[in-house]
Amino acid sequence: MPLLVMKFGGTSVATPDRIRRAAKRVGREVANGYDVIVIVSAMAGKTNELVGWVNEISPFYDAREYDAVVSSGENVTAGLMALTLQEMDIPARSWQGWQVPLKTSSAHGAARIEEIPTDNMNAKFAQGMKVAVVAGFQGISPEGRITTLGRGGSDTTAVAFAAAFGAERCDIYTDVDGVYTTDPRITRKARKLDRIAFEEMLELASLGAKVLQTRSVELAMRYKVKLRVLSSFEDNDEHAGTLVCDEEEIMESNVVAGVAYSRDEAKMTLISVADRPGIAAAIFGPLADAGVNVDMIVQNISEEGRTDMTFSCPVDQVKRAERAMQDAKTRGEINFHDLYADTEVSKVSVVGIGMRSHAGVAAKMFKALRDENINIKVITTSEIKISVLIDRKYMELAVQALHDAFELEKAAG
Amino acid sequence: MPLLVMKFGGTSVATPDRIRRAAKRVGREVANGYDVIVIVSAMAGKTNELVGWVNEISPFYDAREYDAVVSSGENVTAGLMALTLQEMDIPARSWQGWQVPLKTSSAHGAARIEEIPTDNMNAKFAQGMKVAVVAGFQGISPEGRITTLGRGGSDTTAVAFAAAFGAERCDIYTDVDGVYTTDPRITRKARKLDRIAFEEMLELASLGAKVLQTRSVELAMRYKVKLRVLSSFEDNDEHAGTLVCDEEEIMESNVVAGVAYSRDEAKMTLISVADRPGIAAAIFGPLADAGVNVDMIVQNISEEGRTDMTFSCPVDQVKRAERAMQDAKTRGEINFHDLYADTEVSKVSVVGIGMRSHAGVAAKMFKALRDENINIKVITTSEIKISVLIDRKYMELAVQALHDAFELEKAAG
Repeated sequence: MPLLVMKFGGTSVATPDRIRRAAKRVGREVANGYDVIVIVSAMAGKTNELVGWVNEISPFYDAREYDAVVSSGENVTAGLMALTLQEMDIPARSWQGWQVPLKTSSAHGAARIEEIPTDNMNAKFAQGMKVAVVAGFQGISPEGRITTLGRGGSDTTAVAFAAAFGAERCDIYTDVDGVYTTDPRITRKARKLDRIAFEEMLELASLGAKVLQTRSVELAMRYKVKLRVLSSFEDNDEHAGTLVCDEEEIMESNVVAGVAYSRDEAKMTLISVADRPGIAAAIFGPLADAGVNVDMIVQNISEEGRTDMTFSCPVDQVKRAERAMQDAKTRGEINFHDLYADTEVSKVSVVGIGMRSHAGVAAKMFKALRDENINIKVITTSEIKISVLIDRKYMELAVQALHDAFELEKAAG
Repeated sequence: MPLLVMKFGGTSVATPDRIRRAAKRVGREVANGYDVIVIVSAMAGKTNELVGWVNEISPFYDAREYDAVVSSGENVTAGLMALTLQEMDIPARSWQGWQVPLKTSSAHGAARIEEIPTDNMNAKFAQGMKVAVVAGFQGISPEGRITTLGRGGSDTTAVAFAAAFGAERCDIYTDVDGVYTTDPRITRKARKLDRIAFEEMLELASLGAKVLQTRSVELAMRYKVKLRVLSSFEDNDEHAGTLVCDEEEIMESNVVAGVAYSRDEAKMTLISVADRPGIAAAIFGPLADAGVNVDMIVQNISEEGRTDMTFSCPVDQVKRAERAMQDAKTRGEINFHDLYADTEVSKVSVVGIGMRSHAGVAAKMFKALRDENINIKVITTSEIKISVLIDRKYMELAVQALHDAFELEKAAG
């Protein structure tokens, strides 16, 4: 029997009524001849309620107890979904993480999936069960404690099940109807993509297009799981949503798939650092230790043995970065004349696997920004992405200009 | 290390603040040199919320999924309690039913505890853990599914742990400060008992004094677990609450320990039933099958081969009882002229192990009721209890008269 994995996020199962609506979608796939593994999140708001209690009680909590508490929301939804399916005369049962058992590392709060045994659940399918409802986001550690996979972990649960069971597809039902060329709130020309390559999705996800958890995309890419993102709140035909897939499955694509942005960035510059071997390690080691997520790094040309070092990080980490740098200076590990922080910058990026074979993307991007008189402060590039830091006040304008310049409102082919 | 079991009900853990208050009580016992097993209920209201969702989705639910859903409330409290204790620098961790594992029968929704292995938890105590926080009300079936023990099941969990671990005492913290000679809402003369025998508590519990789940008292009696009921909301000294214990531990006691009542009873009479061997089975078999909880049974003297059969049941089961009797008549299994239902009766009982050695309790009871002109409709007796059915309008009066007649406002000795 062919198998599908269907994942429903918190807003899709927020009430018994919505659970019923989701169950009807599952019922349709069962009628189409599929066995289905359903992965559910906690009802919207429930995880926040649980996290709130934990924080109220214990700001520096034991992550094992945190996991035991917050995983309970998914257990509730799994049972309710199984009951709803049974009411529709569909043989279903719920599975909590430890019942599968979904084995993870012991890294509580951010555990990695290590193994999903399939024998037990497959035996139930063979006995006539049509739907296994699995509580997402959770697993069990080698010590027998409940673990969680981090926020958004239910996406990763879904992809891992699809990989373990060789599912035909993994459908992620959410409150948006797919992946867009850019944020539709910034330009109404934003177009839903029918398909997007794993690599592109990874860049977009990590750049703040929060449709899928990054790890779920990595996992899907590694195991070649066809991943579809679609809406719980609309009628979906076979072309609904966005298929995240291997680039070979995308016949025609634009050179640039989308324009991503990250609003609240900061650009920090260490003025006149001694340019000696090991200086980068001496700077970025302490920043990493301080929990600063350094993104872009630019080192200027050295003059007379000194250089300027520029990096970007989220704006709410500036204080932490400054303290780490001053401390390192006090300890004599680094030496600099001054430290500038520009906290009014945003990052805008164009992403597309087509860049690999098309020259001129960078030139076109820079020209579009110049035509709007937007000054570029920092540039970084990867194989399929070009990112720039610009003044925050120009962010929306830049996204619109780039969307126009690469004609993303038009489908390829 | 001596060990205590402490159980906190839903109102005692309703908020993070109340959990903190409960944790302080635990901390005091740890300071007294005890290892402690804490059993927690769900935060007040949470189980009702979960049951509400289940009923909304599926009126005739799969009890296995019901159990998976409703057990989650206790898991949340267990984690939060462990975190609270850790904040107080007390080494603590939470255990869900399946982690212990608390092994039960497969009777979902009303499972019986079969085994509580102690090795694993004792090893943690040996390693320095001071408090094990256990989610009450739940266990795991031989099939690996989550089971629940029925409403009030956390009391039973607590007593079972006390028995398995040989605890010095099992303290049940609740929203009343002990067991009273009768309901203080009916007479202000009601007096808190310092001690009560298991047998008396069983009769009082099953008669509607809902301080403890009946099964927890049965279990405590079988394993001689000293059970103390006391308030979460008051400062307790060593004489606080009520100790439920073996009768040998009660030096002096009144002949009658308390007066119990059950307000909403019905008295049903089958008129002119053929008096033949097996007639009782023919009547009470179908009633049991229909889920009618028959309490008192009285059979009148037979005349000319026919008799009247009277029984009592909760008033909300009258319709069900009538249907069961008419159906049995239609099937030709029983024969009766008429079926009367008196739905305006209450049951009042006096309970006390002292009755065994004291004659005249019944006579004193009947005289007290006669003096108030209260007519007795049905009488049943057991070794330590005399119960009567009376018109509901006299119930409070009867309780007050009996409390006075047996001078229950005065302590024995």
